[in-house]
Amino acid sequence: MHNLAEVARGVGKSASAALRVNPDLPPKTHVKTDTSVKGVKFGLDIDTVLEVAHRVVGNPHVRIIGLHMHLGSPILTTKPYQEGVAKGLVLIEHLRQQGHPISVLNMGGGFGIHYRKQEALPAQAFAEVIIPAVHKAKCRLVLEPGRFIAGNAGILVSRVLYTKESGGKHFLIQDAAMNDLIRPTLYDAFHRIWPVEPREGVPAPPEDYEADMPNTIRQDVVGPVCESGDFLAKDRCLPLLRRGDLLATFSAGAYGMSMSSNYNSRPRAAEVLVEGARHRLIRRRETYEDLIRPELEV
Amino acid sequence: MHNLAEVARGVGKSASAALRVNPDLPPKTHVKTDTSVKGVKFGLDIDTVLEVAHRVVGNPHVRIIGLHMHLGSPILTTKPYQEGVAKGLVLIEHLRQQGHPISVLNMGGGFGIHYRKQEALPAQAFAEVIIPAVHKAKCRLVLEPGRFIAGNAGILVSRVLYTKESGGKHFLIQDAAMNDLIRPTLYDAFHRIWPVEPREGVPAPPEDYEADMPNTIRQDVVGPVCESGDFLAKDRCLPLLRRGDLLATFSAGAYGMSMSSNYNSRPRAAEVLVEGARHRLIRRRETYEDLIRPELEV
Repeated sequence: MHNLAEVARGVGKSASAALRVNPDLPPKTHVKTDTSVKGVKFGLDIDTVLEVAHRVVGNPHVRIIGLHMHLGSPILTTKPYQEGVAKGLVLIEHLRQQGHPISVLNMGGGFGIHYRKQEALPAQAFAEVIIPAVHKAKCRLVLEPGRFIAGNAGILVSRVLYTKESGGKHFLIQDAAMNDLIRPTLYDAFHRIWPVEPREGVPAPPEDYEADMPNTIRQDVVGPVCESGDFLAKDRCLPLLRRGDLLATFSAGAYGMSMSSNYNSRPRAAEVLVEGARHRLIRRRETYEDLIRPELEV
Repeated sequence: MHNLAEVARGVGKSASAALRVNPDLPPKTHVKTDTSVKGVKFGLDIDTVLEVAHRVVGNPHVRIIGLHMHLGSPILTTKPYQEGVAKGLVLIEHLRQQGHPISVLNMGGGFGIHYRKQEALPAQAFAEVIIPAVHKAKCRLVLEPGRFIAGNAGILVSRVLYTKESGGKHFLIQDAAMNDLIRPTLYDAFHRIWPVEPREGVPAPPEDYEADMPNTIRQDVVGPVCESGDFLAKDRCLPLLRRGDLLATFSAGAYGMSMSSNYNSRPRAAEVLVEGARHRLIRRRETYEDLIRPELEV
């Protein structure tokens, strides 16, 4: 806040700012993506928010007009939002008592999506919890629902390279890897996977991808990268596949391409936009020249 | 092996090949980097190696001339190599009995380096275990000691942005993030961190970076990325630092830049080669234009 006020003073302006609070709620998601439990780096605890806000009362170069929180992601119940807005309402009241004209409540994002089955809540359910509080606070609502919009709009398509059995396990080796989709190894995330063109005898895609299925065997879906953590799924019920078959890994529209890397000198995948029956390339596949360009231009 | 033979037949050649064995040793490293325990995707178990080799006896398009294993990484004792070469010697003997002219033994890499303190073994220690077996097998030795060579040749330099206390913890927020060095969050890896230009009163860099130290406090060293998993160190003894101070994160020469990503639209860092008192840029910092180039060129 001090740095912001200094910058604003330097250019002779007054900056509008929001304070991010960590409302200290019970754990909700994976330890790496829970952003509102005690001890994570995000935001300030409630007392510190009030202390920081108190210090800038009357400062002509910064106006605190909003409160921000982000509770973690992906969240599959409304309870954290209910608890979050309740704490937010009280805090907004205290900030207004200090003299800050709070007019914005940013509830962040984190709204869960279908990863395993139809497990996510509709937007309506979150709205019913959040909107009344926003009305009560007489604030404008800001949301960050990136995953909710984009997550299930994207799939990762890969091709089967080999199948093998070793150490009593079945491995399906395909050409996507942890550099393309790091969520399974980074967060133990579950992504639905199914053949793009199932052969005869393959059951219909299941309702619940974690359930046992006839005509399938448990397989590890792995990639060509040099790590045991290079997998898209472990012990997953899938039909037997052959070299050349295409696989779809679902829910790859959020935190897929954006977290991808060039690990193992792998150029990143192309991105194709599909609109009904039409499709077009919106990001070309990377080349080896892309990988070394910053080394050539020195 | 079948695919390789087919390709070689197509071009009228005979391909020389090595088989990768998973020698099924006890766990040695992190679950994501242990590559020679039962059930990981790498290589074939011993029986399967012999079965695959048996199937190509007499095949004019493929000659099995080598055995490959990679035991995991980073490994801090010689025992896995001792056990690995022992199993390798027996397997080479069996492959030769099948008629395969084995002349290469690739023992992979995985030789541990100093991450926390002076905990790594010298090359000599590994050599004493591996070389006699290679002589006995009358093979040429191949090694893949990438981390051992490059790991401690690189540091990640970052700048302190803010310090804060929240929820009873101290946070040191600096401008490097999980997109620059993902090892801490991906493998719970430990990297030594110390100020580049320590102020007066700061103790000398410790022998053991995990020990308690006078004139330091426990801090989480975190970055600006939107995840609780965005950290370089947790609860680390470090002197108090101020905005603008530079930090060195050690052992970043291997699996640092090569695993880096553009997550949170962060251009990747520049790479600078230091030779004695001289230095030169060998990879320029990425630009925002680099990030969108594949989207513009469609």
